[in-house]
Amino acid sequence: MQNESSDMAAQGQFELRLAKSASPNPKNKDFISVSYTINRMFNGATFDGIDARARKALADHGFGVLTEIDVKATMKKKLDVEMPAYRILGACNPKMAHQAIGIEPRVGAMLPCNVILREVEGGVEVSAIDPVASMQAIDNPDLHAVAAQVRDLLAKAIAAI
Amino acid sequence: MQNESSDMAAQGQFELRLAKSASPNPKNKDFISVSYTINRMFNGATFDGIDARARKALADHGFGVLTEIDVKATMKKKLDVEMPAYRILGACNPKMAHQAIGIEPRVGAMLPCNVILREVEGGVEVSAIDPVASMQAIDNPDLHAVAAQVRDLLAKAIAAI
Repeated sequence: MQNESSDMAAQGQFELRLAKSASPNPKNKDFISVSYTINRMFNGATFDGIDARARKALADHGFGVLTEIDVKATMKKKLDVEMPAYRILGACNPKMAHQAIGIEPRVGAMLPCNVILREVEGGVEVSAIDPVASMQAIDNPDLHAVAAQVRDLLAKAIAAI
Repeated sequence: MQNESSDMAAQGQFELRLAKSASPNPKNKDFISVSYTINRMFNGATFDGIDARARKALADHGFGVLTEIDVKATMKKKLDVEMPAYRILGACNPKMAHQAIGIEPRVGAMLPCNVILREVEGGVEVSAIDPVASMQAIDNPDLHAVAAQVRDLLAKAIAAI
């Protein structure tokens, strides 16, 4: 069940983000605050259907899902509160993660790259973390270069769902 | 095996970080780039010993460990490379996570808060993510207030290891 308009929106957003993020340094006066996630809406889709497609697209782009949190079930169990379906998949491209750790040993504090699935009005939204945004707090240009590569791969995976 | 000098260093760093992070907005000219993790070194300690103490300290401060990645084993399995022991614990305080998601629905892309354990020369280093630093990419002052509370709790947990 591909959604053409969502595909186009995802591509458009992807290009916009690449253009804006040429200067990810927050000290740069030209820095424009952008979203911290790469988002895509799937209208009328089922949660489990999108979950399966997201995992396949991630695998096809070299990301293994190393962790998984069922946020809805966790909140019900720990706080006895109800919320819509919400899942956090921890996606990792081992080669890029290894490279990143070599450049910045403590970067594991920001790994893996999360892809979240949320049940929202009208369907399911998928959001992948933009590692360039989250890692802007780390003063390491070499790491930012790797983060940009990972973002591109994640954006392609999201576009391929 | 408490290490007094590490305790003092952790406390000192904690105070320093709180002072500096009063203005976490990267557009603020007074913003000073600080570390993105809260770190503590345990000289001569064993990896598994610190792992157990870290989990206890996190639990005592309201953080459950929801995810766990053995980075060393993953890199060996996926890339056949050797590296020192490296573990990522995904720590979550359910009440604060629920509050954060209510304020910023996509913040799950930055959850849980990771605490990493690394085998380094002379011992084991523990680093907790500073959620104020990683979430500076999110333009939401209400979220920053919650992130600051979580950082304080994480710093206390790290100091209690």
